[in-house]
Amino acid sequence: MYADIKIADDRPVYIQVKDYMKRLIRRGALQGDQKLPSTRELSALMKISRNTVVTAYNELEEEGYIYAVQGKGNFVAPGAAGNVSELSYEEGESGFEDDGGHIDWRQRISRYASEAERLDLMKRGIRAEKGSISFTSIAPDEKLFDLHNVKRAFMDRMSIEGEVLLNYGYAKGYKPLIDFLLRYMENKGVDLTGKDILITNGFTEGFDIVLSALGKSSGRAICENPTHNTALKNMKLHGYSITGVDMEADGIDLKRLETELDSGEFDLAYLVPSYHNPTGIVMSPEKRIETIRLLSSRGIPIIEDGFNEELRYSGSHVAPLIASAGRSNNVIYLGSYSKILFPGLRVGWVLADKELIGYLESIKRSRTIHTSTLDQSLLYQYLHNGNFEKYLKRAKAEYKRKYELAIESCKAYLPLRKLSGDGGLHLFIEFDETLPTRILLEACTRKGVVFTPGDNFYVEEGQGRHTMRLGFSRVADEQIVQGIRIIGDTARELMG
Amino acid sequence: MYADIKIADDRPVYIQVKDYMKRLIRRGALQGDQKLPSTRELSALMKISRNTVVTAYNELEEEGYIYAVQGKGNFVAPGAAGNVSELSYEEGESGFEDDGGHIDWRQRISRYASEAERLDLMKRGIRAEKGSISFTSIAPDEKLFDLHNVKRAFMDRMSIEGEVLLNYGYAKGYKPLIDFLLRYMENKGVDLTGKDILITNGFTEGFDIVLSALGKSSGRAICENPTHNTALKNMKLHGYSITGVDMEADGIDLKRLETELDSGEFDLAYLVPSYHNPTGIVMSPEKRIETIRLLSSRGIPIIEDGFNEELRYSGSHVAPLIASAGRSNNVIYLGSYSKILFPGLRVGWVLADKELIGYLESIKRSRTIHTSTLDQSLLYQYLHNGNFEKYLKRAKAEYKRKYELAIESCKAYLPLRKLSGDGGLHLFIEFDETLPTRILLEACTRKGVVFTPGDNFYVEEGQGRHTMRLGFSRVADEQIVQGIRIIGDTARELMG
Repeated sequence: MYADIKIADDRPVYIQVKDYMKRLIRRGALQGDQKLPSTRELSALMKISRNTVVTAYNELEEEGYIYAVQGKGNFVAPGAAGNVSELSYEEGESGFEDDGGHIDWRQRISRYASEAERLDLMKRGIRAEKGSISFTSIAPDEKLFDLHNVKRAFMDRMSIEGEVLLNYGYAKGYKPLIDFLLRYMENKGVDLTGKDILITNGFTEGFDIVLSALGKSSGRAICENPTHNTALKNMKLHGYSITGVDMEADGIDLKRLETELDSGEFDLAYLVPSYHNPTGIVMSPEKRIETIRLLSSRGIPIIEDGFNEELRYSGSHVAPLIASAGRSNNVIYLGSYSKILFPGLRVGWVLADKELIGYLESIKRSRTIHTSTLDQSLLYQYLHNGNFEKYLKRAKAEYKRKYELAIESCKAYLPLRKLSGDGGLHLFIEFDETLPTRILLEACTRKGVVFTPGDNFYVEEGQGRHTMRLGFSRVADEQIVQGIRIIGDTARELMG
Repeated sequence: MYADIKIADDRPVYIQVKDYMKRLIRRGALQGDQKLPSTRELSALMKISRNTVVTAYNELEEEGYIYAVQGKGNFVAPGAAGNVSELSYEEGESGFEDDGGHIDWRQRISRYASEAERLDLMKRGIRAEKGSISFTSIAPDEKLFDLHNVKRAFMDRMSIEGEVLLNYGYAKGYKPLIDFLLRYMENKGVDLTGKDILITNGFTEGFDIVLSALGKSSGRAICENPTHNTALKNMKLHGYSITGVDMEADGIDLKRLETELDSGEFDLAYLVPSYHNPTGIVMSPEKRIETIRLLSSRGIPIIEDGFNEELRYSGSHVAPLIASAGRSNNVIYLGSYSKILFPGLRVGWVLADKELIGYLESIKRSRTIHTSTLDQSLLYQYLHNGNFEKYLKRAKAEYKRKYELAIESCKAYLPLRKLSGDGGLHLFIEFDETLPTRILLEACTRKGVVFTPGDNFYVEEGQGRHTMRLGFSRVADEQIVQGIRIIGDTARELMG
């Protein structure tokens, strides 16, 4: 005892001594009212300074683990000793377990929890070997991150109001960031009359809160098919029955949309008008206006996923739906910089009708109190310092090059039937019906190349079995070419 | 036009020029294919450098707002001009509104949303005048924050793995922090066999996720009465019917607990064993063991709120319920440093059975993807650097002094019937039944003193009408005395 303590380099020594002593007390190796070694003795045994032992003993006393008797030394507090053993060990190894303390959680969880687990793709994903070429990610390339500007933004903001940032903030969000984003959205053409912003932990929280806030009448939701799989998952978890509308080269198929809308009631529409996930399609301005008209005339709330619209490499300006909708209040815009800037900073925003935002704010408060003020203020200061525009310029140039390389390689090497992707961070590919992409993936994985099978993004099971999404944002140039060539070769082998 | 631009100091000038031009294009002040002033002309009109204009024009072109014609100059892109006016203004001021684009959100929201709003105390709270003495907060005193250590922790961590921190993390949490917290909980006496940790956005998200995960059978929850109002709110929002059990000086009334447990089924118990909110009572070790026994023998999951247990000023060591429960797997421990360290960092954790954590992880992923990696890694590095122990020491000394001052002042000045609070950041006071604290609060507010009426914390409406919570953590010493004296004087006046 004592001499066997292992002092690690990575933590203050007195804390390690304290923890060591606590363990002895807790395990019953030291009994209540038992005398402890003197500080001099312990320092010799542990080969550490006496001051360190004094500090450790003082804190153990403050925390109630030991008590000191003037002139006699330190003793183990009777209440602290063997707390666990009193309970579980005296009643036998199992303690409360015999008494019903053991629960079979699989039997006790809610349907929601088991569905969340079942639909959790991260738990069903492909495990790529180290060194594989992976086209599964559409997260930004971290090599682009301008860390010095991030550090500067943090230090700037901490110097201005560090104490405020570290204490409680507001459910609605960090005021300077809200004001910045309002101006930012106004510059995209949004009429802010009667609208307001709520800051959320990224797109996902915004979407989840909006789904919780909307009342259900038909219990039906309509969206593009295929579409963002997290959105599909969350609509399912909220109990919606989902109607998917096929995509054309310039966005949702308007005729089918109208047919579906005429066929029954819908509680909401979910749309990704720019760099649609997974197809990469940018909806044309004409379709945007017609889509809004079709949905608005039926009083259907539109949840607009502003996903990546910042990433346009070129081409004409396309306004978000909420801008095209003018003063109408039925578009709920979900914004995020996560796919462009830093996903590790969990910041997104909901721009919508002021009254609706009031309800969303209360839900947000009941769920997570508020979004990390550090994330919000750092992002604000980074934007305020003018870093975003410069970063975006570099990022666009980088992604554009990769995009062109990926398109070129796909055309050269893949036996594809259809290819879409107007820019952004990914392409969507459809093969002949003789080539199920799950089988292709299995074969490619063995050759060290992975991608996302497209069926993940479809509303109905069995759809999209010959499609795949290729995310290229984090793949090096030469690997883009090499990886796509391998996929092509493998596809041809399988197609015979 | 142009000359009326107002250049602010706080943002890069070229961005301001860009935004100004976008607004003109958007509002239709500039029409499609209209020629823009040359860079030389615009720089003269706006009194800014020509380079700035060149940069602004380049970016406007990249974003598709304008196009350049070699040798002729820059022109407004036809697609960009008057996007809004095409839609709403040409169809009249209201645009899509006439077409059903206007929704009365109060009619369209879910019951959950309207309940969240109704139960949102922040929207019903007392607005204290500036300069008031406010006993409503139980947040930490930001004067204690050691900003230099926070900055150092951030810089340390960013230097080690900045790129990783800014990209996507894991739903389960930041691995080094999870490992740290597992060791931390083990040092509190927890047997980690079969247990795991999920990191959440503070206590509140952890609680909300756990409530979502637990299956309902009786739909009934049991807890101390009074108790933490956010917990009450969230149990109500999750549709639980709540049974409250009265408190005694050393914690929950065991006889009543047993009677209630014998009277019917319960799906869960929610308990705050240390510095119980709002009463400030620390449950005695004997009661802890008996409470676990009563609940475990009936197979009821126990949600333990680890609220502030770090803040013990003195007295014997008291193990959390999950430590006393040994290897049983029915205790779900929710931990947070928010009330002690930095609430602005939204980090909490759930320590529970491994299998249950698996479900919670999937729910977490569907709700918010993951907790801010910046918050998690900063907190980890701060703890790792050994700052927490030193900070806690200072904080405890500070709060202990305030606590003793508050107790002393209450005894001296308040016509109270009962006083509780074994430490922590607040006291709970009960007056004679002739003194409703809502009326006392109204009178005190006029004299510049505010506190939290105790009825907020009770399960049933109408209970606790003569109680109040006094949070002293952020009140200066002299104001503690002065404020309590004013409350006392006012109470006596009202009691006649």
